[in-house]
Amino acid sequence: MGKGEAIRRGVAERGLVHAMSAHNPLSALLAEEAGFDAIWASGFELSAAYGVPDNSLLSYSQHLDMTRAMAERVRIPVIADIDTGYGNAINVQHVVAAYERAGVGAVVMEDKRFPKDTSLLDGGRQELVSVAEFQGKVEAACAARQDPSLVVVARTEALIAGLGQAEALARAHAYVEAGADMILVHSKRKTPDEVLAFAAAWDGSRPIVLVPTAYPTLTEAAMREAGKINVVIYGNHAIRAAVTAMQQVFRQIRAEGGISGADAAIVSVEEIFRLQDVPGMKAREKRFLR
Amino acid sequence: MGKGEAIRRGVAERGLVHAMSAHNPLSALLAEEAGFDAIWASGFELSAAYGVPDNSLLSYSQHLDMTRAMAERVRIPVIADIDTGYGNAINVQHVVAAYERAGVGAVVMEDKRFPKDTSLLDGGRQELVSVAEFQGKVEAACAARQDPSLVVVARTEALIAGLGQAEALARAHAYVEAGADMILVHSKRKTPDEVLAFAAAWDGSRPIVLVPTAYPTLTEAAMREAGKINVVIYGNHAIRAAVTAMQQVFRQIRAEGGISGADAAIVSVEEIFRLQDVPGMKAREKRFLR
Amino acid sequence: MGKGEAIRRGVAERGLVHAMSAHNPLSALLAEEAGFDAIWASGFELSAAYGVPDNSLLSYSQHLDMTRAMAERVRIPVIADIDTGYGNAINVQHVVAAYERAGVGAVVMEDKRFPKDTSLLDGGRQELVSVAEFQGKVEAACAARQDPSLVVVARTEALIAGLGQAEALARAHAYVEAGADMILVHSKRKTPDEVLAFAAAWDGSRPIVLVPTAYPTLTEAAMREAGKINVVIYGNHAIRAAVTAMQQVFRQIRAEGGISGADAAIVSVEEIFRLQDVPGMKAREKRFLR
Amino acid sequence: MGKGEAIRRGVAERGLVHAMSAHNPLSALLAEEAGFDAIWASGFELSAAYGVPDNSLLSYSQHLDMTRAMAERVRIPVIADIDTGYGNAINVQHVVAAYERAGVGAVVMEDKRFPKDTSLLDGGRQELVSVAEFQGKVEAACAARQDPSLVVVARTEALIAGLGQAEALARAHAYVEAGADMILVHSKRKTPDEVLAFAAAWDGSRPIVLVPTAYPTLTEAAMREAGKINVVIYGNHAIRAAVTAMQQVFRQIRAEGGISGADAAIVSVEEIFRLQDVPGMKAREKRFLR
Repeated sequence: MGKGEAIRRGVAERGLVHAMSAHNPLSALLAEEAGFDAIWASGFELSAAYGVPDNSLLSYSQHLDMTRAMAERVRIPVIADIDTGYGNAINVQHVVAAYERAGVGAVVMEDKRFPKDTSLLDGGRQELVSVAEFQGKVEAACAARQDPSLVVVARTEALIAGLGQAEALARAHAYVEAGADMILVHSKRKTPDEVLAFAAAWDGSRPIVLVPTAYPTLTEAAMREAGKINVVIYGNHAIRAAVTAMQQVFRQIRAEGGISGADAAIVSVEEIFRLQDVPGMKAREKRFLR
Repeated sequence: MGKGEAIRRGVAERGLVHAMSAHNPLSALLAEEAGFDAIWASGFELSAAYGVPDNSLLSYSQHLDMTRAMAERVRIPVIADIDTGYGNAINVQHVVAAYERAGVGAVVMEDKRFPKDTSLLDGGRQELVSVAEFQGKVEAACAARQDPSLVVVARTEALIAGLGQAEALARAHAYVEAGADMILVHSKRKTPDEVLAFAAAWDGSRPIVLVPTAYPTLTEAAMREAGKINVVIYGNHAIRAAVTAMQQVFRQIRAEGGISGADAAIVSVEEIFRLQDVPGMKAREKRFLR
Repeated sequence: MGKGEAIRRGVAERGLVHAMSAHNPLSALLAEEAGFDAIWASGFELSAAYGVPDNSLLSYSQHLDMTRAMAERVRIPVIADIDTGYGNAINVQHVVAAYERAGVGAVVMEDKRFPKDTSLLDGGRQELVSVAEFQGKVEAACAARQDPSLVVVARTEALIAGLGQAEALARAHAYVEAGADMILVHSKRKTPDEVLAFAAAWDGSRPIVLVPTAYPTLTEAAMREAGKINVVIYGNHAIRAAVTAMQQVFRQIRAEGGISGADAAIVSVEEIFRLQDVPGMKAREKRFLR
Repeated sequence: MGKGEAIRRGVAERGLVHAMSAHNPLSALLAEEAGFDAIWASGFELSAAYGVPDNSLLSYSQHLDMTRAMAERVRIPVIADIDTGYGNAINVQHVVAAYERAGVGAVVMEDKRFPKDTSLLDGGRQELVSVAEFQGKVEAACAARQDPSLVVVARTEALIAGLGQAEALARAHAYVEAGADMILVHSKRKTPDEVLAFAAAWDGSRPIVLVPTAYPTLTEAAMREAGKINVVIYGNHAIRAAVTAMQQVFRQIRAEGGISGADAAIVSVEEIFRLQDVPGMKAREKRFLR
């Protein structure tokens, strides 16, 4: 079963697919072990891992290489954040084909202009391309697929850009018309009212995808209850968790002038060996090393 | 001042330079902010970040690319873990020149055979190359420098391989003779006795570097007191801290079916913005975007 | 002496600096051996080497990695083709800093919109950004320099876009005002009249750079005579030469069902050894291998 | 049909499969257009393209990235030169799995010790690993396949190392026993006598692969006549052709002080556009750009 098919079946059979962000294969593996259905190969997280703003500064090939490495390390599907598609519809075709070959199950493309600004930033530049232009990009993405089950998610930033519910809905409809398999509607309101209103008004022709970073109180149970919402992406919790712990542990080691105290608070080296599949490697050494 | 010079001055002026491991520019930046003197561009951590054993599976160019990205993001010097030098003395020259151009202040090369096994693994393969061969590699590394202040650290795994104190000391002397600027002596004993005995017997002709993963009770104060130990590398605490937190946060989100609870326990999105230097980027936008 | 300084001195001392395009370190090395003053790290050639159109499909990091490899292999300066700067002024800063660290002596940035179309294509999309926007990008490029001798070349596509001489001159002046060190004026006319008219009308405040692909009859002697033209870039002759020979040799081998005839027409394996510096490597083996 | 299957069918249906070396997607495309059956993703050519000796200096990931780019650009199968497997049997598994995912149809692994020396170099280091060790590596390569049709070619350097016919045959048999699908026997004799004697003595249990660089007089017709030889690889003619032409054209341009004369001797820019599939891109622009 292809990775796109796995996402489609997850939606069909379980109603709600939950994806956790990752910035490297290890964080993807941890998300898989924790029971998430899918991995969000997040542009925001990878930018953060490189210490640069999520403003189209990392190249698509840098993101692609890390996404490929993730897809190779987990069994669950990877949903690739391809930002604006890294240019026009021709770039989209080049890029979507490359991500499909890298083994992802879905690509998410947003209707902002390249180079984009992070969606959740106060006072950010949030300019959208025209509906017609983005329809062309969605069509290009769909046409670039070798495997028709690859999920093409169109993401509208209409609410982020302050263009209102009607524009968001009109864009979503236009993108479905162009071939989008799912609609991600993004919002930076502190409450879920805006996205829930969108869901209520939506015709349900395609699944809605949410990224509840700004409105964390919206639970999976409430999404199921609202209906029409079939995928939830937790967009930055891997990197935020990692930063929290590294800050604490690094400060403790500096404060104590040694690692004795910190060692007790973190996983052992043996746990890292397990995550690296050292036991599997040792078994292969026994089998193949002469 | 070059990055190698910064390490040499740190040793001369402060007696003990402490380095924290990192697996990407963000973890390097956090270590810098916490007050560490240097970054350890760890092969173990990068292997773990890719979910593969630290057995010469990642290529040198994969490690080099990440090391370059780290060196570009922090002001403190980066100490590059170049494992065995990725082959013979010719590979060493190729590789050391590349790491120097990538902006590191030091390279650490160990006397194990390529492909190596992780040092701390019970029952691992720990085969050393001959003293003469490794002397050639140290000479090659030194000759590859454009900047004579680049620090070439020779790491002996004699204790890890169970060859005893006399062999460790003999190898250390031979490597100094070949031009090594510092000696890293590695040990997997649960107590620091072995490395402290080495330090006591050492002639002090070059600084000793320690990586106290196996014997975490050895404090920086104790190292200073022992003398001759001038660099300490904390070899895997960034990735272990990150794993600990991601496991906890991922489990909590699955258990609670949402991120509301987890959000309270981790740094904010705004803190990530700060680490990405979004404020600096916004200032540059004001200055240059028309 | 920095690489940018080498270009500036070449202009000052020899009047005309000639650069040959390259698509990998080997072609750069051959250009150096043939006596060219500089290497043009061409986006067109690298795109061709990957078999894709020169339409912003390769990422900047793919081009940067190859440019770095070239800069490491030759002593003469590398002039990097950074296209549109891969986005807005913020991308420009990110990118220019990276190319400078990669060791180039100059960057050439054009005033087309990203994603760009190849300049010489009949019926191509040739949209320019506003003068003000490009001034911001030039200022950003200049501000990104660590080494003030890095040459920032502003390339105007005004003639390519059919906007006429007055617009080309106005843009050139505006870019000099913003800090550009040199002006590249591009033309797809089959004769040099257009660029010579530009040169005649130019105030000479900064050197003119030409890429005479479309008008190959313009000789270096004629450029010197015209004056104000101080750099000439031969933009695609490495890849065109390579293609010509590979097509011939491949056809011959297929036609003859063997390599005997072809072998006589091409350089020996020993000549490739020489270009790989095998003799130097063998000398290093003697010195360092034990 | 998988790429490995295409090679196997080529052998079965046409008797002799001929492969041309390539160092980038463009040279691969030209070989495909010339009618070759397969592409040899040559380590020697890629090393030469980077201007470094073919001595395990480029990393496997550098070679893998270029091989993936080739496999994406041609329809005929790519045969990957994986040298020694870049380490021990564990490295082999890691590497073979990666090349298979990159889309190759075959991998060729040689029985030299890492880091290897170029086979055709007079006075090179030509040390082989033990038969048992290499059997383990062949078994590891076979076990790493997801697609059982991926062709695993074992290459013996016994003749290169001067160990004689009996050793070459014994090794070939041992490698077949370990699972090798084909046997490449390499020779640096100026005549084909040595490899023809090998073929005559071979039991024919698996196809023989030849690389007639040193003995170019051996035609495809003669290989067919000799029998048992089912694949011929022309190992370095793309890079040698390219170098020949670049040297000539570069010298001509320097001698003439302009490109007018050289332009007549090389393919046009329009021919490069065709190889870049600019017409296809323009058609996609019409369809998708709004």
